[in-house]
Amino acid sequence: MKIYLAGPDVFLPDAVAIGKAKAEICTRYGLSGLYPLDNGLDLSDGEASLKIFRSNEAMMDAADAVIANLAPFRGPSADAGTVYELGYMAGRGKLCLGYCNDPAVYADRVRRLGDVVARDGRLVDAHGLTVEDFGLTDNLMMIHALDTHGCALVTPPRASADIWRDLTAFETCVRLVADRLGAASTSSRG
Amino acid sequence: MKIYLAGPDVFLPDAVAIGKAKAEICTRYGLSGLYPLDNGLDLSDGEASLKIFRSNEAMMDAADAVIANLAPFRGPSADAGTVYELGYMAGRGKLCLGYCNDPAVYADRVRRLGDVVARDGRLVDAHGLTVEDFGLTDNLMMIHALDTHGCALVTPPRASADIWRDLTAFETCVRLVADRLGAASTSSRG
Repeated sequence: MKIYLAGPDVFLPDAVAIGKAKAEICTRYGLSGLYPLDNGLDLSDGEASLKIFRSNEAMMDAADAVIANLAPFRGPSADAGTVYELGYMAGRGKLCLGYCNDPAVYADRVRRLGDVVARDGRLVDAHGLTVEDFGLTDNLMMIHALDTHGCALVTPPRASADIWRDLTAFETCVRLVADRLGAASTSSRG
Repeated sequence: MKIYLAGPDVFLPDAVAIGKAKAEICTRYGLSGLYPLDNGLDLSDGEASLKIFRSNEAMMDAADAVIANLAPFRGPSADAGTVYELGYMAGRGKLCLGYCNDPAVYADRVRRLGDVVARDGRLVDAHGLTVEDFGLTDNLMMIHALDTHGCALVTPPRASADIWRDLTAFETCVRLVADRLGAASTSSRG
């Protein structure tokens, strides 16, 4: 069983090492982790971005499930590329899982950017735009996509000391996928 | 033909009026616009967010195409819920279109948040995370999803005076959908 490993991990300086660590965890649970890295590509190629897209889409099409790293990225919500990929996999009917090492609810994440006030029965930000206030960590579409098309978002009780490198919640997702897909585990599961 | 109208427009104070204006443009081109509004729902209902999710997913499943408003939202990228929906529609094999009234490229959008510097042949942000630098307005997954599963992102040459309410690029998308889907237009097309 193949698992597409979506996340902004690819933007980290140690992206290769993190991908390797994630793939090794998958292997321990009898699963094959597909990690989208553009390292093999010449980024000065005028078609580099299109080639990366096609490579990622082909990997998603080949996978049975996705595990998305939904850590907040340059704002209160998850990385846009990761969110796109979660949507794509849900649309394709694949098993959808996700984790987030920052369990803060969305309204609190927006508060980090500036004022959030109550107006006309809704929370609004400094620009007067409604702030979702359902006690969820991110936009309801992703959170309930996981509930509906896979497993509920996995979060730690408190934010991880290293949001980007703590793979505890990720491993929980791998275990859930292995259980769901009935993969033969070669590990002793905790 | 039904078009799902995705976008953070639903978070604006005049969300209902904007949805009405968008639906009217669709009607002029012989199309039916489906606008996800939660107005009918009791937001204090403990299951409100799940009901909104299910309603939006049912609308997407019923639609032939999506037009996504990919304006930057609380950061350099588009609204996460909208991005999820674009991915879902691409995964379902629907026709995918999008527009953005801010044509700034992604690296410049990240520069609005803070320093972006070149390091080891890549652009990185203040946290050392790679900044995509392909001359695209947003993450390559969404931009090339449009190229691959519909039409290239529609942007104005310069940022609109009112990013949220200028429907010129939106109307271009509607016209493209009408042309692609062969809808009977009842308007004189510009």
